[in-house]
Amino acid sequence: MISKEQFEKYQQITINYFNKAGIVLTEEEKKRIEVADLGLGQLETTGLQLLTYVNTDRCCAKELVLIPYQTCPEHRHPNIGDRSGKEETFRCRFGKVYLYVEGEPTQNIKAVIPKGKEHAYTVFNEIELNPGEQYTLAPNTLHWFQGGEEGAVISEFSTASTDELDIFTDSEIQRIPVINE
Amino acid sequence: MISKEQFEKYQQITINYFNKAGIVLTEEEKKRIEVADLGLGQLETTGLQLLTYVNTDRCCAKELVLIPYQTCPEHRHPNIGDRSGKEETFRCRFGKVYLYVEGEPTQNIKAVIPKGKEHAYTVFNEIELNPGEQYTLAPNTLHWFQGGEEGAVISEFSTASTDELDIFTDSEIQRIPVINE
Repeated sequence: MISKEQFEKYQQITINYFNKAGIVLTEEEKKRIEVADLGLGQLETTGLQLLTYVNTDRCCAKELVLIPYQTCPEHRHPNIGDRSGKEETFRCRFGKVYLYVEGEPTQNIKAVIPKGKEHAYTVFNEIELNPGEQYTLAPNTLHWFQGGEEGAVISEFSTASTDELDIFTDSEIQRIPVINE
Repeated sequence: MISKEQFEKYQQITINYFNKAGIVLTEEEKKRIEVADLGLGQLETTGLQLLTYVNTDRCCAKELVLIPYQTCPEHRHPNIGDRSGKEETFRCRFGKVYLYVEGEPTQNIKAVIPKGKEHAYTVFNEIELNPGEQYTLAPNTLHWFQGGEEGAVISEFSTASTDELDIFTDSEIQRIPVINE
């Protein structure tokens, strides 16, 4: 669990990234920014910050922020009942993001895997996204991503989002939203 | 039908709006910007410019641009077979947009209805969206919208988009994509 001070620090960092990306938020939205440490307490290397604009039972849009070298760890969005898993498109708005998906492993990947977690990263097909570039992930495929040296702001367009049902390769991860209280 | 010159002029205007909104596009995307005059040949007052980022059979994201006082005329997204009509969220990124939906009519609306087309506008519940503000439209509900005095840049997050099946109140409208050839 992260402290209130750390939560507020990361919320402010996130607001600064949105400013740099030219993304305007309402005051209400700024307070709703989620800081997801995924239960690991290692935000400097693992986790992400996000704001959900809309999430109905049909579609969803979010903005994601990664600080430099921060990693959203490997996971997939499983099918739920007879419904296909979440389909998502990542569009880089600011900075750079290294995205890894299933497929031919890239030699000498540019991202740095968080120390001691090498076992929890299994897909290494590298896709580099710069501002204006995007990639659409098929449902239920393993992926992870890391911000570049300036961090990254990423728009995510997807089907309905049910973060708590995501399956992470690292069994120590708990995908519980962190709320500022 | 609009001329090649007019098409290119509106594409360039649209690129300028994206620049003002801090939205970065690839060169390929700039060439894909759609100029939709809806078959009326009156782009100064009626139509819109748009770029589709992604449109699968499950979800869609676009950026829309309206020049000052340009109107996307009244329409709805019907149910198709047993599938609900398109659900869409409009998020204002730059400028101002006046959105009109079904419900209690607003007295003295701020938008100016295109001359001679008064019969094609029937819903007047006014929603003003400034940068950072958004509104989610239920499927199959009538709506229209107009850019304010500086125009508007609007992100649209939605279920699958099938523009050619939209039902416009104005029977003279033809929703055919205009391609630069």
